[in-house]
Amino acid sequence: MRVFIVVAHKFKGEINLNDLPGSGRIDVVCRCINAAIFMSHRIRKDVEFYAYFPNLGVRIRIDSSRVKYLNPDERSTAALIRNALKQGATEEEKTSSPGFYIKKSTFENLLEEVSSKYSLYYLHEEGDDIREIKIKSNPAFVLSDSLNLTEEEEEIVNRYSTARISVSPHSLLGSHAIVITHNELDRRGL
Amino acid sequence: MRVFIVVAHKFKGEINLNDLPGSGRIDVVCRCINAAIFMSHRIRKDVEFYAYFPNLGVRIRIDSSRVKYLNPDERSTAALIRNALKQGATEEEKTSSPGFYIKKSTFENLLEEVSSKYSLYYLHEEGDDIREIKIKSNPAFVLSDSLNLTEEEEEIVNRYSTARISVSPHSLLGSHAIVITHNELDRRGL
Repeated sequence: MRVFIVVAHKFKGEINLNDLPGSGRIDVVCRCINAAIFMSHRIRKDVEFYAYFPNLGVRIRIDSSRVKYLNPDERSTAALIRNALKQGATEEEKTSSPGFYIKKSTFENLLEEVSSKYSLYYLHEEGDDIREIKIKSNPAFVLSDSLNLTEEEEEIVNRYSTARISVSPHSLLGSHAIVITHNELDRRGL
Repeated sequence: MRVFIVVAHKFKGEINLNDLPGSGRIDVVCRCINAAIFMSHRIRKDVEFYAYFPNLGVRIRIDSSRVKYLNPDERSTAALIRNALKQGATEEEKTSSPGFYIKKSTFENLLEEVSSKYSLYYLHEEGDDIREIKIKSNPAFVLSDSLNLTEEEEEIVNRYSTARISVSPHSLLGSHAIVITHNELDRRGL
């Protein structure tokens, strides 16, 4: 299993399908989902994707092995996120569409939950080079959207994560970092 | 300079911004443009991107050093492509918006033009591993959309290209292949 957690700081809960960037940059999350789940003509079956929305205290989980109606484009992905949000998040996880789940959560609870099952890594441009570092099986990667993690979030990530990993000599978009991470794991057969 | 050429077989000329996948999979081209041009909070200034539309005999060229109004999301990128197509392609290259150019072309003429200035490589899942192969400076990479190149197109690519390069042990989306290609070149400082 490979897990990706994207923290979407700008999202406030409203999605206008005709203006995804104006909808708290939900386009960024949609591209991260594309990067995490899609291959050519098929879906990776071993991915768990979390979008965490600090403004809402909500996380959406996608289980790629169960997902249906997910397409590679941003708009239809945003529609599935909007559909999940319409269910209303509670303390109990709810299924909004096959493979899409929504739940209230603090950031700390999310990382606690994920790191209890997976080895958590922080994707960060100042980390160790992904090509050089040992990565355990069943890794989970946490990354931020176009804003950096807050100090408080970073303190939580540092507490639960094993290492910082960098994928490039440059600062990249989160979706691109996910693609490169998958590529390294694919090459290692992890 | 780095050049990417994406052959968009399914596109027939009409773009409905509310249904990009239904618009001849123009969403695929938009994601390739995102992959080729964007980094975190900035644009790569050394990229030339070509979208080639066989059904139209038209190519759109994007010069990343001159581009304006380009954002990372699919919809606004598709709007710039639609705007270029509205100009109507002729034998003379026309500017449709800063950094966006449109022109009639055969596939062969496009590859002839590009390979006269750059070293052309064919991104293909059966190629040599990008991590192992020597890549000349100023490389150009040609790749297909969700359909393979036709036999005729492949014959032309083989004539003008130096080698086949593979980026992954798996078959990936074109946009993901572009991200991995950039990453390898970034690491080599090419």
